[in-house]
Amino acid sequence: MPNWLLPENIADVLPSEARKIEELRRTLLDNFRSYGYELVMPPMLEYLESLLTGAGQDMDLRIFKLVDQLSGRTMGVRADMTTQVARIDAHLLNRRSVTRLCYAGSVLQTRPSGLYATREPLQIGAEIYGHAGLEADAEVQELTLASLALAGITQVRLDLCHVGVLRAIIANDPKAAKSDAILFTLLESKDIPGLKALTSDFSPETRDALLALPNLYGNAEIIDRARQVLPKLAGITQALDELALLIRQAGEATVTVDLADLRGYHYHSGVMFAAYVPGLPNAVARGGRYDHVGEAFGRARPATGFSLDLRELARLMPGAERRQAIRAPWGTEPDLRQKINELRRAGEVVIQALPGHENEEDEFECNRSVVFENGNWILKTLG
Amino acid sequence: MPNWLLPENIADVLPSEARKIEELRRTLLDNFRSYGYELVMPPMLEYLESLLTGAGQDMDLRIFKLVDQLSGRTMGVRADMTTQVARIDAHLLNRRSVTRLCYAGSVLQTRPSGLYATREPLQIGAEIYGHAGLEADAEVQELTLASLALAGITQVRLDLCHVGVLRAIIANDPKAAKSDAILFTLLESKDIPGLKALTSDFSPETRDALLALPNLYGNAEIIDRARQVLPKLAGITQALDELALLIRQAGEATVTVDLADLRGYHYHSGVMFAAYVPGLPNAVARGGRYDHVGEAFGRARPATGFSLDLRELARLMPGAERRQAIRAPWGTEPDLRQKINELRRAGEVVIQALPGHENEEDEFECNRSVVFENGNWILKTLG
Repeated sequence: MPNWLLPENIADVLPSEARKIEELRRTLLDNFRSYGYELVMPPMLEYLESLLTGAGQDMDLRIFKLVDQLSGRTMGVRADMTTQVARIDAHLLNRRSVTRLCYAGSVLQTRPSGLYATREPLQIGAEIYGHAGLEADAEVQELTLASLALAGITQVRLDLCHVGVLRAIIANDPKAAKSDAILFTLLESKDIPGLKALTSDFSPETRDALLALPNLYGNAEIIDRARQVLPKLAGITQALDELALLIRQAGEATVTVDLADLRGYHYHSGVMFAAYVPGLPNAVARGGRYDHVGEAFGRARPATGFSLDLRELARLMPGAERRQAIRAPWGTEPDLRQKINELRRAGEVVIQALPGHENEEDEFECNRSVVFENGNWILKTLG
Repeated sequence: MPNWLLPENIADVLPSEARKIEELRRTLLDNFRSYGYELVMPPMLEYLESLLTGAGQDMDLRIFKLVDQLSGRTMGVRADMTTQVARIDAHLLNRRSVTRLCYAGSVLQTRPSGLYATREPLQIGAEIYGHAGLEADAEVQELTLASLALAGITQVRLDLCHVGVLRAIIANDPKAAKSDAILFTLLESKDIPGLKALTSDFSPETRDALLALPNLYGNAEIIDRARQVLPKLAGITQALDELALLIRQAGEATVTVDLADLRGYHYHSGVMFAAYVPGLPNAVARGGRYDHVGEAFGRARPATGFSLDLRELARLMPGAERRQAIRAPWGTEPDLRQKINELRRAGEVVIQALPGHENEEDEFECNRSVVFENGNWILKTLG
């Protein structure tokens, strides 16, 4: 097998694409910063237990394992940066105040999430710690939509769900609490006959609520229907109020709600959202509340945030234009060097032609040239 | 052991340091671009053979190995990006013209290079492919010094050496060629008695030249002494001419030359340099010519370049100043939202205080506030 073949679902990023990714990376990080988010850089490697802390069991299968030659212990290459950033908030910064953090970096996954998915997403995201109120979720949702807008994407579908609804129903009925694992399976597959059988000896209120859930999906009006159909439990009312506020704040995005969507149920603790855009079957960005993430690090802090794959987002953007540049001869004369440096400092790309390669064209379009005329180095437009 | 301890020689980067690194990263990449270098992003993971191609044997020990669940083959996590970028030049771009590429990314190493060295350098670098002449080396040296200057470092010592001198001596004497491995060991340890014994049956010219090498180190004047002492072989003359030109182009940097410095002899093919700065025992940047790197990928192209660790370089810079910011109340009123967005677009950091956290201070110094007065949201300086 030739040396230059890459593993499946692993790819190089070539100049035109790399440029788009780099520019988008800067734009998004600058926007996070304008909201007061501070950049952190967690390491690529950690002890495995640390990476698995607070994460779901499925994460274990997604993490590449390595043996640490210095300690003999098992390390993992990060497959997700969310728990790393939670660890930084909990232990390194250890602030009592609200903390806003953002990050951008490669993560590696043992298997791709789909046939054409990369195993090396370039994850970028933002998190708020220390505020349990919905205002933090609203800011995170706003940042998500702003990030997509900065990538030039305006047609967005925002899918909202809330684990609080099911949690409140279950907490209200000891019988339901006992069979929660089966309940999830049945709800996830929207298996109505199975649900009917399982809930036959639950209280009528619980039974009706659970049987209603699989049909409570659709546009924003579903919130009003849910208020009529579901029991008036405090947890349900709060969840529906939160969803209603996020819907109002969604701006131009098309909103859909699915109260039986349980992805991340064990990991998340409040509202969850996923953003979809034309041309991509999978969510382009995901986020939500996961207040329990810090607990395993010994310091439970309310937490909410979102992340997306920069490479995937950049692919949706139009190609970068071929950048115009200035060609200059190679030479060591101080006047020439000074002229070139001035142009570069003024933001121009100046390419010195190496001897024997004077007329080569590459990625840059050289439409001007530095030439020596009447005793001076001057800039001349090429015909 | 607590979950939040990191492996040895692995660290988180917290906000103030992360900010410095991010700014330096942008500054250096922008400077590379102003010279016409195009950004590429090779993957973190490759098949092991590919990462080892063209690299020294010592690289094998530095690379973390993983099993690919999709192919069963052994993959490695990159410990250096140079060969990856050479692979991109050789196969993906496959241009006949001069190609300038740059890159920035994390690399992982099984063991630290020193007691306090990181195992996760953030490598940034630039490479020129397709030009065998010294002009390319001169540009790379200039870029190296410019990169250090952009980090605010002006006191630089540049160590130069050239594998062409020893190569020419060995190529001129079949007996020397036969014992090259022992010769390297003796020269590296500057073992004069050993050299005398080994070279006793070499031609007198070769013997004198080899015995002279260990003493040919010092400042720029060493070039003239070498011209007198060493035989007038074409390879030696060319190497000394090249060194002389690079010394003239070194600007403010203090130059030292060591003709018996053989680090990277098997990897490099021409001039090599290392930049040292006050406060760091190891070289802060390294570079040189390695024309053979593409051969293993089936396409030999002249190549020269340099790289450095962004994290290490950023540590030498003064701490970033605490950024001033604007505090705003949380709210959904369109006028308030508009005022906040305007300020953010103008480059300000505006932090919305979440309810109950109005008077917290964090990394940002809030010296202004958005307040509602006389029916308008206005910006007010805090006392």
